[in-house]
Amino acid sequence: MGTMKAILKEKPGPGAVMTRCPVPKPKAGEVLVRVRATSFCGTDLHIYHWNSWAAGRVRPPQIMGHEVAGDVVEVGDGVSTIRAGDSVSAETHIYCGHCRPCHLGMPEICANLSILGVDRDGCFAEFVAVPEIVCWKNDPSLPPHLASVQEPLGNAIDTVLAEPVSARSTLLTGCGPVGILGVAVAKACGAAPIIATDVIDYRLDLAKRLGADIVLNPQRDDVVKEVRGATGGAGVEVLCEMSGNAQALRDGLASLALGGRVSLLGLFGKEVSLDLTGQIVLKKARVYGIYGRRIFETWQKAAALIRGGRLDLASCVTHQLPLDDFPKAVDLMEKGECGKIVMLPGD
Amino acid sequence: MGTMKAILKEKPGPGAVMTRCPVPKPKAGEVLVRVRATSFCGTDLHIYHWNSWAAGRVRPPQIMGHEVAGDVVEVGDGVSTIRAGDSVSAETHIYCGHCRPCHLGMPEICANLSILGVDRDGCFAEFVAVPEIVCWKNDPSLPPHLASVQEPLGNAIDTVLAEPVSARSTLLTGCGPVGILGVAVAKACGAAPIIATDVIDYRLDLAKRLGADIVLNPQRDDVVKEVRGATGGAGVEVLCEMSGNAQALRDGLASLALGGRVSLLGLFGKEVSLDLTGQIVLKKARVYGIYGRRIFETWQKAAALIRGGRLDLASCVTHQLPLDDFPKAVDLMEKGECGKIVMLPGD
Amino acid sequence: MGTMKAILKEKPGPGAVMTRCPVPKPKAGEVLVRVRATSFCGTDLHIYHWNSWAAGRVRPPQIMGHEVAGDVVEVGDGVSTIRAGDSVSAETHIYCGHCRPCHLGMPEICANLSILGVDRDGCFAEFVAVPEIVCWKNDPSLPPHLASVQEPLGNAIDTVLAEPVSARSTLLTGCGPVGILGVAVAKACGAAPIIATDVIDYRLDLAKRLGADIVLNPQRDDVVKEVRGATGGAGVEVLCEMSGNAQALRDGLASLALGGRVSLLGLFGKEVSLDLTGQIVLKKARVYGIYGRRIFETWQKAAALIRGGRLDLASCVTHQLPLDDFPKAVDLMEKGECGKIVMLPGD
Amino acid sequence: MGTMKAILKEKPGPGAVMTRCPVPKPKAGEVLVRVRATSFCGTDLHIYHWNSWAAGRVRPPQIMGHEVAGDVVEVGDGVSTIRAGDSVSAETHIYCGHCRPCHLGMPEICANLSILGVDRDGCFAEFVAVPEIVCWKNDPSLPPHLASVQEPLGNAIDTVLAEPVSARSTLLTGCGPVGILGVAVAKACGAAPIIATDVIDYRLDLAKRLGADIVLNPQRDDVVKEVRGATGGAGVEVLCEMSGNAQALRDGLASLALGGRVSLLGLFGKEVSLDLTGQIVLKKARVYGIYGRRIFETWQKAAALIRGGRLDLASCVTHQLPLDDFPKAVDLMEKGECGKIVMLPGD
Repeated sequence: MGTMKAILKEKPGPGAVMTRCPVPKPKAGEVLVRVRATSFCGTDLHIYHWNSWAAGRVRPPQIMGHEVAGDVVEVGDGVSTIRAGDSVSAETHIYCGHCRPCHLGMPEICANLSILGVDRDGCFAEFVAVPEIVCWKNDPSLPPHLASVQEPLGNAIDTVLAEPVSARSTLLTGCGPVGILGVAVAKACGAAPIIATDVIDYRLDLAKRLGADIVLNPQRDDVVKEVRGATGGAGVEVLCEMSGNAQALRDGLASLALGGRVSLLGLFGKEVSLDLTGQIVLKKARVYGIYGRRIFETWQKAAALIRGGRLDLASCVTHQLPLDDFPKAVDLMEKGECGKIVMLPGD
Repeated sequence: MGTMKAILKEKPGPGAVMTRCPVPKPKAGEVLVRVRATSFCGTDLHIYHWNSWAAGRVRPPQIMGHEVAGDVVEVGDGVSTIRAGDSVSAETHIYCGHCRPCHLGMPEICANLSILGVDRDGCFAEFVAVPEIVCWKNDPSLPPHLASVQEPLGNAIDTVLAEPVSARSTLLTGCGPVGILGVAVAKACGAAPIIATDVIDYRLDLAKRLGADIVLNPQRDDVVKEVRGATGGAGVEVLCEMSGNAQALRDGLASLALGGRVSLLGLFGKEVSLDLTGQIVLKKARVYGIYGRRIFETWQKAAALIRGGRLDLASCVTHQLPLDDFPKAVDLMEKGECGKIVMLPGD
Repeated sequence: MGTMKAILKEKPGPGAVMTRCPVPKPKAGEVLVRVRATSFCGTDLHIYHWNSWAAGRVRPPQIMGHEVAGDVVEVGDGVSTIRAGDSVSAETHIYCGHCRPCHLGMPEICANLSILGVDRDGCFAEFVAVPEIVCWKNDPSLPPHLASVQEPLGNAIDTVLAEPVSARSTLLTGCGPVGILGVAVAKACGAAPIIATDVIDYRLDLAKRLGADIVLNPQRDDVVKEVRGATGGAGVEVLCEMSGNAQALRDGLASLALGGRVSLLGLFGKEVSLDLTGQIVLKKARVYGIYGRRIFETWQKAAALIRGGRLDLASCVTHQLPLDDFPKAVDLMEKGECGKIVMLPGD
Repeated sequence: MGTMKAILKEKPGPGAVMTRCPVPKPKAGEVLVRVRATSFCGTDLHIYHWNSWAAGRVRPPQIMGHEVAGDVVEVGDGVSTIRAGDSVSAETHIYCGHCRPCHLGMPEICANLSILGVDRDGCFAEFVAVPEIVCWKNDPSLPPHLASVQEPLGNAIDTVLAEPVSARSTLLTGCGPVGILGVAVAKACGAAPIIATDVIDYRLDLAKRLGADIVLNPQRDDVVKEVRGATGGAGVEVLCEMSGNAQALRDGLASLALGGRVSLLGLFGKEVSLDLTGQIVLKKARVYGIYGRRIFETWQKAAALIRGGRLDLASCVTHQLPLDDFPKAVDLMEKGECGKIVMLPGD
């Protein structure tokens, strides 16, 4: 089918290049998607920067990107539920279906995971091939730039809704792109009050616009004291740690009420030292590790919230750029002055 | 302390009278509350009409009413956590604290329950005595007519939130005063879409205003078909039965998705015949009997939702009347053209 | 591959014949299993008797049977996780993987289910073809007659463990083959006391041997009174309805404690009339429809309990017969004087 | 009423003395219990040794001890549910009933806790006064030395049953007195396999006798490797950390399966450094802080397991001594060569 534009991680080390690659051919069980929108994730930035995790896992040359919305243009052998013309997004964790976690209903932690744009060619391109089993059919009326963002919205949903959040005081530490989506989810689902922290004021402003009742900058504000003050001294019932910053976690735990719940989405670069006795055991806290999304439960929830107009997803997408502007997207992500950035290969 | 105005169920049989009664004296462990607002519940109407349940349980003469907000004016011996001047409402299920359900954290189904206005003098009066253990301290800035409605709001919360409702399609059958509160709770907590049914159009209009996406009148609409249509054929994931009408339950179950959840709050006057095999077993449905509120978990949630402005409680209160207008309140309840009716003894 | 012995449902109407059929050829994604053991389920009896459910669903001619253990002798195209020589059993609910229930982790209520021995040729035969996705690899040291019984053990596990049963008083109504397995599971998992009911004394004796503390025959015993007596008046915290008998359910609900839990596995032949208000709503009971097994969670649990010697599965299998003795198996099932009956095609 | 024998923590610093103290007089809402049996807890040893926690909390002079069984000999004013002659044990966490955790059904983490033998005079004595609200009525036929051990059995129940343990592979790190009870609970509730670790062989032998399938001494055995080997490489689904030893926790987390559950009962003397990313987040692990017991849910469960003969509680009590032999009990606890030690003031 010729060639296409793509952002290629050419070789180990920092950087990536806009180049032309062959359009992939869908194998048995795969579909070929014309990419209408692809959004930028912190993981993409790690691969671009070639941090230690990326260096240990990614095998260049490989096309970057995993958040996608597009139209199916071709289906491989044996595909039975998807047709050319379907609007789809993709669950990016391609699971085996046969291992113990898959058998127990946790395909997102499949023992044989292959991740789009991490372990195989991704979607920062005009076309991408994805297995039928991870395709999610979109309502054709859903704009591609929003459809693409359903994937990280799923992370936010899984983090915030690991236990019910309705009518519970909630602290979200970290207002990066997923944190911002977390604020929107918490608001849509009745968390009250919602407190959000970050060190970048742009993000705090965005959090406020999306429903945070209180925003705090730990460089200026005493988070623990402010949270206690806003909760009648009790602390928050829910902590969603979305920064991967050890101090944010420590402040969050110190802000947690007796009997509170913690979701850990952020990845910590190294070991974290914690007062388990005081902050977890004696508080009877519950802590949930969050990874990926619940496949496909969170997709169902994301679609329901969007269809019902329950959250302002459009405001979470702060930038839409042509794919050619990938360097600008990198720059915005590095500065942190953005919500979700969506790239449009067709522009 | 002299006498006070009160609505007294004087004797067995239909009716009740506005009369003067002695102001109660708080016993050990009780507080005396000057009633600022008291709201009208379907249970009060049953006692007024003297239905078979009321005839079997209530022992006149007794002052009616159980939903209340007011100020503490006197405390009995041994009261340690409430003071004169405190703004309070009351959990109306006075529990023993020693029986099996109390020991298992379900005081609302205490084996030795005494219910305000059902088993002892209630709050359709200028003053009422309530045990300290069921007092709920209100934010003094909360208007009494809203504070009084927290009690039935708790029923609605327990019904709607028996399992998480966020991002789930939800059908509420019955838009009486508690059903209306249920719609508001479902909306605040991110249910989507929200479908509500009733046979009275006034109530459907109110449900729509409070957040229902679709309202249906079973006298005009094919509920099962409309629900299927609104949910892509799947049916609703959540059914909140709030009418006590057998046909509403049957339609609700027929509208329920595979793997759906049902909360039963409505009381059915007689046995109900159900297709358990088709509607419960083969669907892997989960059914929860709901009674009262989770003490005091739902009070915490009610207060959090109100404080955070997450629901439009003011619109749920469609009428505020002087206590003297009790006959008018009865009339409104009988016609069903109301949300919550609040009576104000001080007016 | 020639022909094989098989129990064939030749045509609509009562009965089935032992005959010879062609050995099936595994299609793409399927494996061919040499049947070592196949066990008899109540569903098989319904198909044999051609009750209204069977008449409405089964399309003869079709080989009967769905509970199986055997060795893989051939694999179809595309099979990647199973090899010839593997010992396997089969989850009998063949799910699509793409519908809403599958996407939500409930493949057992897949909207496009095909059931072995119900919707396609089954395993009352020397060979059976089954899809790879429903194969469960057995420990090769597990005797086939026990391996076959894992499937109904899964139903029992799902019924008994729908909520934790440990340290909870438990009533099982119905001690047919799955009920008996339910008693063994309840015992293994710490239910206490365990009370079992049936109208056939053979079954009650078996229940007692497998761990029931008290057995009751409703034709002789006042079940509600005895249950109350055995639970200090409180009633049971758990009811597992495994009979499909309306009176058993009514007695069970009347025996249920405040705040109790009910699992409904038995299928009722017609509508059941219930006092929902008194038995479900005012008791704050929770009712779970149980269908099939949680795929593959219950297989994991079944294997763990067997491997650990936590339940006496061998005693649950009261009869082992050559496949040729199918008529005797029918006779035993009709009389109800059996636990699980296993047929051995190789004998 | 004269004087009684008692073990008194006379003053800050290590040690305690057997002396005579006045028999307490039950205040309003309290009952006086003649102590038949009182068991020795690790907390008592901390108070005896006067570790930093004890030095910061306990205010001598104070009678030690909190695990108790005895007979009520006198009741204070206002006591309504307990009578002289009743056999009772006591929940040792005396809760206020009015704070946020109490209101939310978590009295064990009451914001105003007073603990028997920690914050007020305890039960290492011939008599002890306890509030009615924490009394648990025992079956009079239950031997006192077992009745006393229900309290720590509750900790074990809460730890092991924080999520269902039936049919799940389970690792208990630490076989001190509560760890031993944990093994017995895990066995009674169908955990399989059960793996227990400790550095003292006496305890491992006891663990084996009480139901552990595999026992490991980390000073000799490679715990992570052995656990992986015993679980088909998957790791354990449940980790119950009952040692308070950081390395035990680290080994436990490294032994945890994807999607596993952790209960933390042990108290760590200082901060613990953990690989949260690898061991919690990417594994989607769930971690529960456990403190005290669920009041009174775990008492109900303890009583049910004992009454039903589901666990071998008698074997968990390795020593019964006269109260006069308190120094010997201290010695045994220090060596760790014991399960539960019960002291009998009447001997």
